[in-house]
Amino acid sequence: MKAMTLVGKKLPLELQQREDLTPDAGQVVVRLSTAALNRRDYWITVGLYPGIKPPVVLGSDGAGVVLACGDGVDRGWEGQDVILNPGIGWGNDPAVQSEQFHILGLPEDGTFASEVVVPVEQLHRKPECLTWEESAAIPLAGTTAYRALFAQGNAKPDDRILITGIGGGVATFALQFATAIGAEVWVTSSSTAKIDRAISLGAKGGFDYREEGWEKRFVAKVGAPDLIIDSAGGPGYGGLMGLAAPGGRIINYGATAGAPESIDMFKLFWKQLRLQGSTMGSPDDFSGMVDLVEKYQIKPVIDAVYSLEDTNRAIDQMRSSPQFGKYVLKIA
Amino acid sequence: MKAMTLVGKKLPLELQQREDLTPDAGQVVVRLSTAALNRRDYWITVGLYPGIKPPVVLGSDGAGVVLACGDGVDRGWEGQDVILNPGIGWGNDPAVQSEQFHILGLPEDGTFASEVVVPVEQLHRKPECLTWEESAAIPLAGTTAYRALFAQGNAKPDDRILITGIGGGVATFALQFATAIGAEVWVTSSSTAKIDRAISLGAKGGFDYREEGWEKRFVAKVGAPDLIIDSAGGPGYGGLMGLAAPGGRIINYGATAGAPESIDMFKLFWKQLRLQGSTMGSPDDFSGMVDLVEKYQIKPVIDAVYSLEDTNRAIDQMRSSPQFGKYVLKIA
Repeated sequence: MKAMTLVGKKLPLELQQREDLTPDAGQVVVRLSTAALNRRDYWITVGLYPGIKPPVVLGSDGAGVVLACGDGVDRGWEGQDVILNPGIGWGNDPAVQSEQFHILGLPEDGTFASEVVVPVEQLHRKPECLTWEESAAIPLAGTTAYRALFAQGNAKPDDRILITGIGGGVATFALQFATAIGAEVWVTSSSTAKIDRAISLGAKGGFDYREEGWEKRFVAKVGAPDLIIDSAGGPGYGGLMGLAAPGGRIINYGATAGAPESIDMFKLFWKQLRLQGSTMGSPDDFSGMVDLVEKYQIKPVIDAVYSLEDTNRAIDQMRSSPQFGKYVLKIA
Repeated sequence: MKAMTLVGKKLPLELQQREDLTPDAGQVVVRLSTAALNRRDYWITVGLYPGIKPPVVLGSDGAGVVLACGDGVDRGWEGQDVILNPGIGWGNDPAVQSEQFHILGLPEDGTFASEVVVPVEQLHRKPECLTWEESAAIPLAGTTAYRALFAQGNAKPDDRILITGIGGGVATFALQFATAIGAEVWVTSSSTAKIDRAISLGAKGGFDYREEGWEKRFVAKVGAPDLIIDSAGGPGYGGLMGLAAPGGRIINYGATAGAPESIDMFKLFWKQLRLQGSTMGSPDDFSGMVDLVEKYQIKPVIDAVYSLEDTNRAIDQMRSSPQFGKYVLKIA
């Protein structure tokens, strides 16, 4: 089998020929049709992710056909079209992952390969409404968006929801999921083209977060949002606390802009705000996300499809975040 | 009637003789037996509270007998022993107070007086298990503690709960309520005597928050807390985020130590923490609190009882926070 492998820190991935995989007890081997990139893969290749240990095959998202089952696995899985839940070892607490939790593609070999081996619990039948490319696009970003919106953010149809930094995979799924349940969705971006694209996907409109005072204009034009989904943090975070409606929730699944300069505690307690952290989700979040995609026939937004051999080019593209939606790898 | 009145900013309260009160439609006049102090009263007298408009009779907590009912009020209230819910105009949203919300004792005349007039909705029968002094001790601090613990903090019997800065009214009720439902409660204080007192009320133990690295010793000895109830904020807030268990909640009903120096966003999202603001509570929080006090026969902790004429001395005492529990005023 072939695999795009991280062979050293801060190096491009290397295309390797490897032995075909065999499953241990409780595992399955999946022949991958498609995979998808996440910002996590970019952070790993530039050395900015904890626990990097080469050599490792990167890749968290994948879809394909079950090739072989290890001992104790129901043989009915063989030949089935599947997608993979990339979150391994969540544990029993819906509120938080266990210490064993990790994501496929580091430290275990991932999906940028023609084959991958995973515990059978990670399998989920491929949604019929999705192509192979779309199927690979949903697992990690879709589950992260689902958890932020629903498990942590308690999103409801009558909520006004702001999704910051539209264009990334998670933000774009959050937009699609929130729109699907009937919520009123707004976005921010530094790109007018991305805001227009968001509107075409159901957003009511958007604001350029680089413009001084955009929060005040937001409140004047739209009203305060009940729920904000953010992955930036940084200097703009205080503005989000001012922008949020009394009783509002701000959910962060990342902090690409770093730490906020300060936190206005008076706003926190007098507005009864909830500042909630969120990550990739539990097995329930994963299956809830797939159910939502099927119920509302959501079509994942794919920015571009690359060949497996072109993975480095796709990762390079992520450097300046030009994308809207997912980068997918076509493997077989 | 007599009333301790704020007649100008940063002045001691002045004992005034005033006209007896008469109720408007929907209101009642209560002859007060007891009142109680809150830190709010201290902040107002030193000029550090929004919206100070003398002259005003301070005081949020009170208990007494209904003297007179305005039009539209059920006459059955006359002669009844009552306590007052000091939160007026909460509104319909359990998640947050309306813009009309305010607390008895600013801008409306409060309970440091022999009579007070309130909307009939603020009345609640006096719990039979409490003395007059204890009855006046519970409303504002008890409701604030109840909301922080239960409505916002979702406290459960199997939670490990840390209450910072034990000794203040809210913190002490939080300790008693959390202990009552069977939770494992720990406290912090700069005073060994206060920690000992907390242990006598059911706390498992305590730590001196002035000692460098107390959070690490806490985790080593006790394990991480699921829920932290804090009203300090300030430089120690980051330490609380490190201390909280994964999936933990930190509830702030104040920030006497000001803004945190920074917020570790990685901790926020990877530990899936919830940073939740809380204030005085809704009518449901108030009646839930009274029910809890009656169910578990909780005896409010009273530090000292003063006469109404001695109100200024009681307020002065709060300057350096020596108290454990409530300061109560005996009025009639």
